Amino acid sequence: MSAAADTPMTRGEVGDWWATGVTRIAPGEIELRGYPVQDLIGRATFVDTVWLMLRGEFPDPARSRLLEAALMAAVDHGPQAPSIAAARMAATCGVGLNNAVATGVNLLGDVHGGAGQQCMELLADLRARHDEGAALDDAAGAIVAEHRGQGRYVPGFGHRFHPRDPRRDPLLDLVEKAVAEGVVEGRSLEAALALEAALARGRTRPVPMNIDAATAVIYAELGFAPELGRGLFVLSRSVGILAHAWEERQSGARIKGPLPRSVLAGYTGPASRTLP
Amino acid sequence: MSAAADTPMTRGEVGDWWATGVTRIAPGEIELRGYPVQDLIGRATFVDTVWLMLRGEFPDPARSRLLEAALMAAVDHGPQAPSIAAARMAATCGVGLNNAVATGVNLLGDVHGGAGQQCMELLADLRARHDEGAALDDAAGAIVAEHRGQGRYVPGFGHRFHPRDPRRDPLLDLVEKAVAEGVVEGRSLEAALALEAALARGRTRPVPMNIDAATAVIYAELGFAPELGRGLFVLSRSVGILAHAWEERQSGARIKGPLPRSVLAGYTGPASRTLP
Amino acid sequence: MSAAADTPMTRGEVGDWWATGVTRIAPGEIELRGYPVQDLIGRATFVDTVWLMLRGEFPDPARSRLLEAALMAAVDHGPQAPSIAAARMAATCGVGLNNAVATGVNLLGDVHGGAGQQCMELLADLRARHDEGAALDDAAGAIVAEHRGQGRYVPGFGHRFHPRDPRRDPLLDLVEKAVAEGVVEGRSLEAALALEAALARGRTRPVPMNIDAATAVIYAELGFAPELGRGLFVLSRSVGILAHAWEERQSGARIKGPLPRSVLAGYTGPASRTLP
Amino acid sequence: MSAAADTPMTRGEVGDWWATGVTRIAPGEIELRGYPVQDLIGRATFVDTVWLMLRGEFPDPARSRLLEAALMAAVDHGPQAPSIAAARMAATCGVGLNNAVATGVNLLGDVHGGAGQQCMELLADLRARHDEGAALDDAAGAIVAEHRGQGRYVPGFGHRFHPRDPRRDPLLDLVEKAVAEGVVEGRSLEAALALEAALARGRTRPVPMNIDAATAVIYAELGFAPELGRGLFVLSRSVGILAHAWEERQSGARIKGPLPRSVLAGYTGPASRTLP
Repeated sequence: MSAAADTPMTRGEVGDWWATGVTRIAPGEIELRGYPVQDLIGRATFVDTVWLMLRGEFPDPARSRLLEAALMAAVDHGPQAPSIAAARMAATCGVGLNNAVATGVNLLGDVHGGAGQQCMELLADLRARHDEGAALDDAAGAIVAEHRGQGRYVPGFGHRFHPRDPRRDPLLDLVEKAVAEGVVEGRSLEAALALEAALARGRTRPVPMNIDAATAVIYAELGFAPELGRGLFVLSRSVGILAHAWEERQSGARIKGPLPRSVLAGYTGPASRTLP
Repeated sequence: MSAAADTPMTRGEVGDWWATGVTRIAPGEIELRGYPVQDLIGRATFVDTVWLMLRGEFPDPARSRLLEAALMAAVDHGPQAPSIAAARMAATCGVGLNNAVATGVNLLGDVHGGAGQQCMELLADLRARHDEGAALDDAAGAIVAEHRGQGRYVPGFGHRFHPRDPRRDPLLDLVEKAVAEGVVEGRSLEAALALEAALARGRTRPVPMNIDAATAVIYAELGFAPELGRGLFVLSRSVGILAHAWEERQSGARIKGPLPRSVLAGYTGPASRTLP
Repeated sequence: MSAAADTPMTRGEVGDWWATGVTRIAPGEIELRGYPVQDLIGRATFVDTVWLMLRGEFPDPARSRLLEAALMAAVDHGPQAPSIAAARMAATCGVGLNNAVATGVNLLGDVHGGAGQQCMELLADLRARHDEGAALDDAAGAIVAEHRGQGRYVPGFGHRFHPRDPRRDPLLDLVEKAVAEGVVEGRSLEAALALEAALARGRTRPVPMNIDAATAVIYAELGFAPELGRGLFVLSRSVGILAHAWEERQSGARIKGPLPRSVLAGYTGPASRTLP
Repeated sequence: MSAAADTPMTRGEVGDWWATGVTRIAPGEIELRGYPVQDLIGRATFVDTVWLMLRGEFPDPARSRLLEAALMAAVDHGPQAPSIAAARMAATCGVGLNNAVATGVNLLGDVHGGAGQQCMELLADLRARHDEGAALDDAAGAIVAEHRGQGRYVPGFGHRFHPRDPRRDPLLDLVEKAVAEGVVEGRSLEAALALEAALARGRTRPVPMNIDAATAVIYAELGFAPELGRGLFVLSRSVGILAHAWEERQSGARIKGPLPRSVLAGYTGPASRTLP
């Protein structure tokens, strides 16, 4: 009754469907991007290995430190973030800790986890306009005007909670230092500062970079593709998601909803009615 | 550089790794459990098809009606359930509606979605003790005592919110009618009633069956395996999860957390401190 | 140390953050869109309840039958779909059946589960062009030309596996009958047929509607919003996902990967190398 | 129509429902376990921050290095693992990179991701038996006999693919060195070696520790709770999941199933049949 034709094929043909350049295994052997894993254990740092796995080569120490700072800075922003809250609730529902973490990560979508990626795309756009001859400030002003005209936020700027995100300054200080030392080029930093200035022009209240733009600057300076901006944020925020899920697990709470049981959700639907 | 040996194998060998008895496809053909899909469209109901897919054969109409009632009864219990709340939050994070539904379903774990399955296992245990000669009331009393002795809830009985779950009576009425008509045997109903009576003995407040036990009785009478009790609940509650995610999507909210922004989560950790 | 201000607020204020028009609960009461749940059990079908929960009112029987047929038709397409395969693999990894279903649902994204939604948007676009005075065939031809010009598929037409999807004809027959009986208007059916004709013009091989377009026609004729096209597909395909996860669970397999253990994934990365 | 009573409550009461000891935020302030985030950026490593978030305090450098080695060692084992394969498939379905990572993490359940946690529980059990006076070898032999008697694997020992897991030796070398330097006590290492010896006694083929036991030894020596063994593995393997999802994303594949389209899944169900 098999629907599969019985013409021969090679194992290689089938294996090619799942071929990868990331990791090679054979009995007794595991190589990550060509490096035998036993050569790396105790020698390669975790952050260097993140870079190796995503990019194919190890970074130099100065670049690795920048990546490390960005990953460290975004680990958590407390339980009012829906990703954290959902993971905490999951941890009380009788699922594995991995399922709780997955629940949180699943919420880091375009709106909740995508601002860094979108900001990286914006920085690339601004650098491209600059390359084509536009003055940086003019091009930044045009981008801000385009967003405002469409009623859209400029991703990575302003924060609904912090007047000035406390992670902005120390991250940008590290980038400035790296530029001064020739570690990175500094063009994404310049682009982000130009956008920040354009957002402030003619306004009484500044709209400073938040964590998304500050890490976007770092990831862009390090040459990561914008979509990996989201990916790196996922790795970073997974630490906070895990810490919160674990705290909730230890509390012993069961089926934790968003509100204490004594507070009922409001109701806005039709009044009680009967079937005809 | 391929690690896959090039010894020939047949497509059948590889296809067998993914062999299934559920659905057969070939170009221009789709058969569900042997039935060409075009013969079923417009003729088989959705609930009959659920049964077919899970059990391999279609149910008779009377059994199908019982399954339909159980699936219908459990579609929703409002946004205070963590599964619903998490799906609503997901819907504001810039992920697809499918990701929001998956988020809710992911939370229907042992504690939040598993009581029906556990109750089905308990009913099977009680029926087995009865088969081995114990009086039903004695065996039910023993099971209740065992749970109380271990400080455990009897799954499917009592509700942290409803003194009496409004879904209990109409569901059990349907089962009683089906027993009277010879549609189902009634042994799982008897077992559940015996547990309910045992829980009430010597107490001033009854601990009546909730939706989990009422649907567990139906699924058990219909011959579903206990683990499918969880599976059927997932299908049922997916309706509520989708309805709530959709309502939230239409609201246009962005990054909805568990609390309004004006209310801060409390903090129980160490006071502000500095690195040495 | 609490960061939450101690200014009083009402429970209503907090409850309003989670207010909903879908379901109202109070001790001993559950109302779905205003209907006490006990009035619906044994009277409302599952499919009618899906409609009620998503739309706020019950459908008439003829419309409900159309919805039922569409939900039934799309329950499964076998384990080669990534959603099904991922759910089957999940079922062997020691997670709950709900986590396995969530894994499958999570994969029904824009590309794997979104064609119906995109087709509904296309039908709405075509109807709008028609309303603005364009001949239907001309407007359909223009849309096809636009897609071809951008190298894009027309969502809902053609199938990478079936020369003619066996679900197309019986679903469209039901719509035609419903149009003849005045149950639905038929404008989305006309639009879809016009697109099908436009795709065939000047080609030797037709590109007939697949399941996504056929169900998109039904959902559009019934007045569902395009995004709910995805939502309804999720409910429908959840049946197949559950059936496959359950079949895999019963097999007792552990940590099932995509390939039998004897077949190794190919490797395309760098040759073995050492740290400096 | 609000179901929420209008008795006043304080914001603190509601905030307490979400109270946490992990992170405190206030406008312009973010503190992780009491440390202002701006003091940590550029100074705390990512791995130290993982420790801080999970344990509440920073580790000393020697302990941090052990944690780093364990996290680094388990980042990937190739696309034949269901977690990796599912994430790769997800990446072709039109969902966000975060959803693809969540899909992979969701599969790291009791069977696929839980062996480390179970091994940590076993090591704790063996240490406890030793504390109660049993000779370590006797107690290890008893545990092995218990598992064999129940037909169960001893979690963390043996590998279905590697005769000897290449990650075992370098990880245990690091632990031995740390014991020699007084960094950790060495009791979990002794326990694991006793189990390995007990598994080998009277057998011709050894059953050496795999990555799960080797990392379990480290996490146990560092004082992590067993369930965090799973949590730390999730953080580690997320790197491989992300790298593979990203590789697949770059391939441009759409709706990648487990088999090439030319190979059909086998079918084991009933022959074609018709409705009566």
